[in-house]
Amino acid sequence: MTAGTTPHLSPTERVAAAYRRIAEVDRPEVWITLRAEADVTADAAAVERRLADGESLPLAGTLVAVKDNIDVAGLPTTAACPEFAYTADVSAAAIERLVTAGAVVLGKTNLDQFATGLVGTRSPYGAVRHAQHPELISGGSSSGSAVAVALGLADIGIGTDTAGSGRVPAALHGIVGIKASLGIIPAHGVVPACVDYDAVTVFAADLDRAVAAAAIMAGPEARDPRSRAWPADVRLAAPQVPRLAVPRGADLTALDPSYREAFTNTLAAVADSGATTEEVDISSLLDAARLLYDGAIVAERYAAVGAFLDTAPAGADPTVAAIIGAARATTGPGFAQDLDTLAKARVAALELLAGFDGLLLPTTTEHPSITAVQADPFGINRRMGTYTNFCNLLDMAAVAVPGAPTADGKPFGVMVVVPAFADQVAVDIAARVTGSEAPALIDQGVDLAVFGAHLRGQPLHWQLEQIGARFAGEIRTTDAYRLTALDTVPPKPGLVRHGPGLGAPILGELFRVSPAGLGSFLAALPAPMALTSINLADGREVIGFACTFDAAQAATDITAYGGWKAFSQNRN
Amino acid sequence: MTAGTTPHLSPTERVAAAYRRIAEVDRPEVWITLRAEADVTADAAAVERRLADGESLPLAGTLVAVKDNIDVAGLPTTAACPEFAYTADVSAAAIERLVTAGAVVLGKTNLDQFATGLVGTRSPYGAVRHAQHPELISGGSSSGSAVAVALGLADIGIGTDTAGSGRVPAALHGIVGIKASLGIIPAHGVVPACVDYDAVTVFAADLDRAVAAAAIMAGPEARDPRSRAWPADVRLAAPQVPRLAVPRGADLTALDPSYREAFTNTLAAVADSGATTEEVDISSLLDAARLLYDGAIVAERYAAVGAFLDTAPAGADPTVAAIIGAARATTGPGFAQDLDTLAKARVAALELLAGFDGLLLPTTTEHPSITAVQADPFGINRRMGTYTNFCNLLDMAAVAVPGAPTADGKPFGVMVVVPAFADQVAVDIAARVTGSEAPALIDQGVDLAVFGAHLRGQPLHWQLEQIGARFAGEIRTTDAYRLTALDTVPPKPGLVRHGPGLGAPILGELFRVSPAGLGSFLAALPAPMALTSINLADGREVIGFACTFDAAQAATDITAYGGWKAFSQNRN
Repeated sequence: MTAGTTPHLSPTERVAAAYRRIAEVDRPEVWITLRAEADVTADAAAVERRLADGESLPLAGTLVAVKDNIDVAGLPTTAACPEFAYTADVSAAAIERLVTAGAVVLGKTNLDQFATGLVGTRSPYGAVRHAQHPELISGGSSSGSAVAVALGLADIGIGTDTAGSGRVPAALHGIVGIKASLGIIPAHGVVPACVDYDAVTVFAADLDRAVAAAAIMAGPEARDPRSRAWPADVRLAAPQVPRLAVPRGADLTALDPSYREAFTNTLAAVADSGATTEEVDISSLLDAARLLYDGAIVAERYAAVGAFLDTAPAGADPTVAAIIGAARATTGPGFAQDLDTLAKARVAALELLAGFDGLLLPTTTEHPSITAVQADPFGINRRMGTYTNFCNLLDMAAVAVPGAPTADGKPFGVMVVVPAFADQVAVDIAARVTGSEAPALIDQGVDLAVFGAHLRGQPLHWQLEQIGARFAGEIRTTDAYRLTALDTVPPKPGLVRHGPGLGAPILGELFRVSPAGLGSFLAALPAPMALTSINLADGREVIGFACTFDAAQAATDITAYGGWKAFSQNRN
Repeated sequence: MTAGTTPHLSPTERVAAAYRRIAEVDRPEVWITLRAEADVTADAAAVERRLADGESLPLAGTLVAVKDNIDVAGLPTTAACPEFAYTADVSAAAIERLVTAGAVVLGKTNLDQFATGLVGTRSPYGAVRHAQHPELISGGSSSGSAVAVALGLADIGIGTDTAGSGRVPAALHGIVGIKASLGIIPAHGVVPACVDYDAVTVFAADLDRAVAAAAIMAGPEARDPRSRAWPADVRLAAPQVPRLAVPRGADLTALDPSYREAFTNTLAAVADSGATTEEVDISSLLDAARLLYDGAIVAERYAAVGAFLDTAPAGADPTVAAIIGAARATTGPGFAQDLDTLAKARVAALELLAGFDGLLLPTTTEHPSITAVQADPFGINRRMGTYTNFCNLLDMAAVAVPGAPTADGKPFGVMVVVPAFADQVAVDIAARVTGSEAPALIDQGVDLAVFGAHLRGQPLHWQLEQIGARFAGEIRTTDAYRLTALDTVPPKPGLVRHGPGLGAPILGELFRVSPAGLGSFLAALPAPMALTSINLADGREVIGFACTFDAAQAATDITAYGGWKAFSQNRN
């Protein structure tokens, strides 16, 4: 029994279960600071009081493991270097938002020191062993947070991701990792790795739980200068038949054979699910990826903690210290040159993916043993970032989910990669990959009620797909409306307001659209259609369809059908 | 007689007049490459043929001087260093757009070498003398383009602006300089100064002409990786009473006393024009400005041309070579640190200006003589960039226009500075400063027709101001509409479509709004109002107001008044 599968327990009971499980699994290297059970129980009790007071807490009792490069008020932040430790006065904004929503922090987790690595072995607090195969690596740098989730110790694990640290450990454990667009989840209160390319991420056993946490952590934050809001034309859904770019065979040579086979099987399943796939040449993305460590960008790591590492602290990981120390020698002109290369690569990537809804990639290349990584601390790590490194450099978002397992039953992970701000599209496609319902990540937009040609399956529904509209359920109007059949091509109904009791409840569908999407939709709306405020039977008032007065007068009353689909079926 | 004031001449006649004037003024240092008159005449004749063929050419016969760090196909690009010269195969995208619109290029103009300087003296092709006061500097780096306009040799001068090069020479000459948001006018075909902070700019004698050219040069360009489109919620107008931030006295100590007095007089005139002004502490902006030359960002200049200058070409300007050569020593971590400082300064600047429509600043500090600058090649230049340097670093746009002249009749210039993409707001405020009509820079958006409470002067007009709506004229509907008085608070009319001949032309007003502005406006629209497609008497079909069927039936017919204002005045 894991904490994650016992939703019927109260928050305090969930804490007790988690601490029993923590003792049972005996994985001390997962935690750098595990809080005292009594303290966490007190937090859970406070959540119970807030619930009793009638507060609505979407994450009530959700147990959180926090990577130890992210501040939690009152706890030390070590970034996995004991000499670096300080006690945080305030929590990182993202953590604060989780706690406000009812989550409870269990403790701070182990990581590749200063979030530099994808392996989970680069820590004086011990190499983090894989949850199910302890001789193998956990993946990193967000190693402890991933293993805490995979072992069922925590419901969600908060990590960071510069090169792939919020995705690689998810892939190795068959769990979900969400790396939103840069700036969407504030990085306030995070020890920077490369400050311009760091994202706060979330692990969870399933997409629903990961997205719920990400949605709560997302949103502008004054204390993070790189914080960004969703744009006014943000897409709120993937189309019903998403078009996916996939790598050519030539781009997959870095993959272990068992992963190569699993990727092929995953692609087949995705195609079976109704998505279309098309091979593209991703070598330009993989080239850009190399700039993260091979170019001058690594100077950002030196700017963050280089002066500290220059003091040669005893707890410095030699591999990490070597990487960051080498950045001392990077030059200003070299940095400028690399920024220029990145600017060009960013545009080239957008062009490559234009016309696609997302890019489906293997998350990492292989699953090595701890001893193999210790014997070759640079080479394997580098190869494991082949498909993740470019993402933040090129301003893209990624959702990492389990793909088809390998022939010997090990997890294999894939990523849905999208341009900045298309995060919801990535979530929707990832849901298709995992065969689950697609949860809503973006909690904004305008509700639009449609009653005729824009209903799902009707001839103009594509216009809603084009503006990234998200289906939000079937609806009925109050009885103030009459439905008419207009004289239009294609045939459309006119919803006509006559007043309470003078009509009948009319069936329609509700869609969530962005402000710019709604404006563009209205701008293209032909006569005699109109948009107005509509009263729904459930009491909501939403924007929805109407028609002009003269068209309404000239139209045929079809109110008796109760909706356009019933009328259309009868007519055909 | 200047080329700029003879619109009745044909394009070829304008070329002839310009070449007479070029000979007459005898300012050879303005040009690095002046094209042969016959070649320019041939281009003008081609424009005449296009006009005769019925092409619509908004810039037909507009004479253009192009700064010699911008490519014009078939001409050398020197960046004011003879050894750097190459012959351009294709024109810069911005120039190509001007020529497509009917403009004719006269030649390539002198500049501070590699666009490094604000003075106009740093060129082996000669110090560019001021148009009216030849003992004084012209300002730079876009010196030749500004003087060509100020002397009436060209209608528009194209420049570039990293530190203020598209604004300082405008200030010194009493002309207009527009530095749009970074990426709005593509920098394709431009020799980079600091490639991330370079803007292509335009000089003209008046705002109308400068904005017309900027509008044609603006827009996404695939060949410029830093190209940006106007966002979906772009503001299309300043409010009727703009709120302007202005610097405190303590921030103006760098100003020459004659400029200080002129700035005070300008502020008084702006306040008289109905804008509100409020002092803010701009020291944080001035601090950020210093990073352009004092920090590691100057490494971008080295990345652009440092290797070339390291060959010690004979034509290198010693001051420019010293500045760019020093950037060789900047470090990667130093660059990263400065990027971080800038990211924070950018957010701080947005916070400082939140609630304001723009910041009104003096463009430069003084107007020195050429000998003074030659005696102190660094100090004066540095001071002259006090108010311009921060603009591109902090991702802001600026429109430079003449302010009140100095007591001895010399030009004095001010800038309207706004956050990225608020360019139209800056243009509108600049028009108020110069007492001219505000031309439209941004040629996009949706037309929205209003007929009642949203008309100018009516109680809900503020909602249109809030979404940055731009007034686009009075309109009348066809005679298909009847006007009714609805039972709403505040009182509103309902425009009701009955069909051709069944109503009367109804007076209204047209506004241009962004797609997101329209969506937000609709989302907030209360019952019984609706938006639909409206037929105007002039044949246009635009989005405009309607109301629900039941409200229309219940309302009082006021069609006889012909419009809401006539009805309201009669009723009161």
